Amino acid sequence: MTERRHELYLLTPGPLTVAPEVKREMLADRSPNSAAHCELTATLRDYMLELCNGRETHVCVPVQGSATYAIEAVFQTLVPREGKLLVVQNGFYGVRLREIAEGIRLNVAVLELPMLPLPTEEVIEAALTADPGITHLVLCHVDTGTGVRNPIEMVAEVAKRHGVGVIVDSVAAFGGFPIDAAALDLTAIIASPNKCLESVPGVGIVIAKRSELEAAAGRSASVVLDLHAQWRFFEERGNQWRWTPPTHVLGALGKAIERHRAEGGIAPRHERYRMNWRRLVDGMRQRGFMTLLPDEVAAPIIATFRDPTDPAYDFPHFHAAMERRGFVIFPGRLTAAGTFRIGVMGDLIESDMTLILEAIDESLAEIGVTGCMAQAAGAA
Amino acid sequence: MTERRHELYLLTPGPLTVAPEVKREMLADRSPNSAAHCELTATLRDYMLELCNGRETHVCVPVQGSATYAIEAVFQTLVPREGKLLVVQNGFYGVRLREIAEGIRLNVAVLELPMLPLPTEEVIEAALTADPGITHLVLCHVDTGTGVRNPIEMVAEVAKRHGVGVIVDSVAAFGGFPIDAAALDLTAIIASPNKCLESVPGVGIVIAKRSELEAAAGRSASVVLDLHAQWRFFEERGNQWRWTPPTHVLGALGKAIERHRAEGGIAPRHERYRMNWRRLVDGMRQRGFMTLLPDEVAAPIIATFRDPTDPAYDFPHFHAAMERRGFVIFPGRLTAAGTFRIGVMGDLIESDMTLILEAIDESLAEIGVTGCMAQAAGAA
Repeated sequence: MTERRHELYLLTPGPLTVAPEVKREMLADRSPNSAAHCELTATLRDYMLELCNGRETHVCVPVQGSATYAIEAVFQTLVPREGKLLVVQNGFYGVRLREIAEGIRLNVAVLELPMLPLPTEEVIEAALTADPGITHLVLCHVDTGTGVRNPIEMVAEVAKRHGVGVIVDSVAAFGGFPIDAAALDLTAIIASPNKCLESVPGVGIVIAKRSELEAAAGRSASVVLDLHAQWRFFEERGNQWRWTPPTHVLGALGKAIERHRAEGGIAPRHERYRMNWRRLVDGMRQRGFMTLLPDEVAAPIIATFRDPTDPAYDFPHFHAAMERRGFVIFPGRLTAAGTFRIGVMGDLIESDMTLILEAIDESLAEIGVTGCMAQAAGAA
Repeated sequence: MTERRHELYLLTPGPLTVAPEVKREMLADRSPNSAAHCELTATLRDYMLELCNGRETHVCVPVQGSATYAIEAVFQTLVPREGKLLVVQNGFYGVRLREIAEGIRLNVAVLELPMLPLPTEEVIEAALTADPGITHLVLCHVDTGTGVRNPIEMVAEVAKRHGVGVIVDSVAAFGGFPIDAAALDLTAIIASPNKCLESVPGVGIVIAKRSELEAAAGRSASVVLDLHAQWRFFEERGNQWRWTPPTHVLGALGKAIERHRAEGGIAPRHERYRMNWRRLVDGMRQRGFMTLLPDEVAAPIIATFRDPTDPAYDFPHFHAAMERRGFVIFPGRLTAAGTFRIGVMGDLIESDMTLILEAIDESLAEIGVTGCMAQAAGAA
């Protein structure tokens, strides 16, 4: 009998299944201007830089809200109004990047690409050559709408040749995938506490190139999303926050960082997710499910499966049957219709995958998908 | 012996001392799109309208971030670029309102007033008459920088005669002071979960006049702070959030609302604070302290005291001595130099004030302020 480690499993792109010891940090109230809270903020700002080799070249600026707030803060602050932003759009979160950039009325160019094949050097090169007005480029690191991991290293190299700054939306990936801010000379990385860092939602995190941030005073059309002002306040006030921070959420993040470090950092965490993902994908294939992506381009933090063709199958009923068993799965994004998604990030280990697979068997039986029921051979 | 109810007392303008049962809600993970989470969001949106008699005329739009994010969201969305905002500035938070309005480059006029006397009908009337271009007016309900409660009812009445929309920054007051959105015909109220509603920080709350919000599509220069888009998403998606919400923070707010309702709503909560405040102020006066404000204009949620004149007194040492005993007090704002503040909001009852006064006695003795030591008679 496999031990059940959580009452509720959030098998989504996030918020995730958070370790109880992380959540227990939220039982304490904290004064945001206390020495202990400033120390917590200093530690988290430094650890983010450590994770991306950014200590010499970059600064970390957390932003109240969510990762999307951090994305807009980067666009508001680091892309000049007279500049132009190329959005590499090859998945759902690429569409979101475009919506935010266009929504704040930046000059935007869009490189619309299919989910696969992955962007090639030629296609990036051609896009930058075609429009010399482009000053910055943004792309997703891992798009959890599909599970595709983009080749950020190649893109950064091409962009550098063109003198174009690169912004990486690493919201889903940061903490679970290597990224070198200094070596790739990135303008900014956007990260989230509630993905591979395995904490609770409530802030977004920006890692910004110091020289570009220094030049960005007064540029943002939003006061609260002005990264330059937020950064200066942290620096000048010993890591106090400009506006009331979510103190309980930050307490949890402090513990999550301790756990990330204790696990050994990015590589062991990535390996744990990979083992979860391998076990899940193998188990699902044994049941006749097909993945949307070939394994070699899939990021091992979320798996996207094609809906079974069995006429008894219906996602809402499947989802509800899973939820009754304490497992929350996610529908596919519009950019990948006819699929559903199961995330393997969070406080999950390989044995949890056994429980998930058992719940899938039970749920499919409950909704009347019988026999070797998830035969999806016809869906390819 | 008075029972000590909390290990740490946050006697600040917020974040506050939060009841353990509210914080325990954060031990559960929640899926933001689950029926239960949508129901939680629906309940909190409705309760805010109930508290301000806004169900028929207003809508509630919570915003990830903090109350300051909600203030900017109101300015971005509800004040037209061709309009003009009059900021009634008679305290620290009036200065902040001005900074945000000017920071996003609205047309701003400022009515700069001393802390006291309270704004009169004549002065508001004169300001609106002098500049017929003014379309909106904003003022604080209770300015916790000083403790002054502004006469919002009178201001709203004068503004209405001029056809000027009124925005009330009720961040510190909402839930502890009556405010009637319909009767005062307010453009918007801004509220916070971590003041009189006694929950944890991580969101801001806007109550907006439906007709003005309906007319505000596409106006905001920020995507994430676009209240119209945020509102439409809640309405069209059954109270799902547009971007990842702070699920744990919202869980806590759900419980805090239950407690607010169980206490009997605004009036009993206000009365509990008033009794806390009365006991604290009386006790401090017995010790020779003087309040910054006469009682009749002071809001009974925070008390501002003049620094004692005893040369041994020094706020940082006093603060540290209090903190070592588990009581966090706040320095005065720049708008009221030479003062310190003690808040009485949060999960506090009259007996807690006895503990606070004992800690003050011990702390003053520790820093060498002796005898009837807090004589501040010369400070008036």
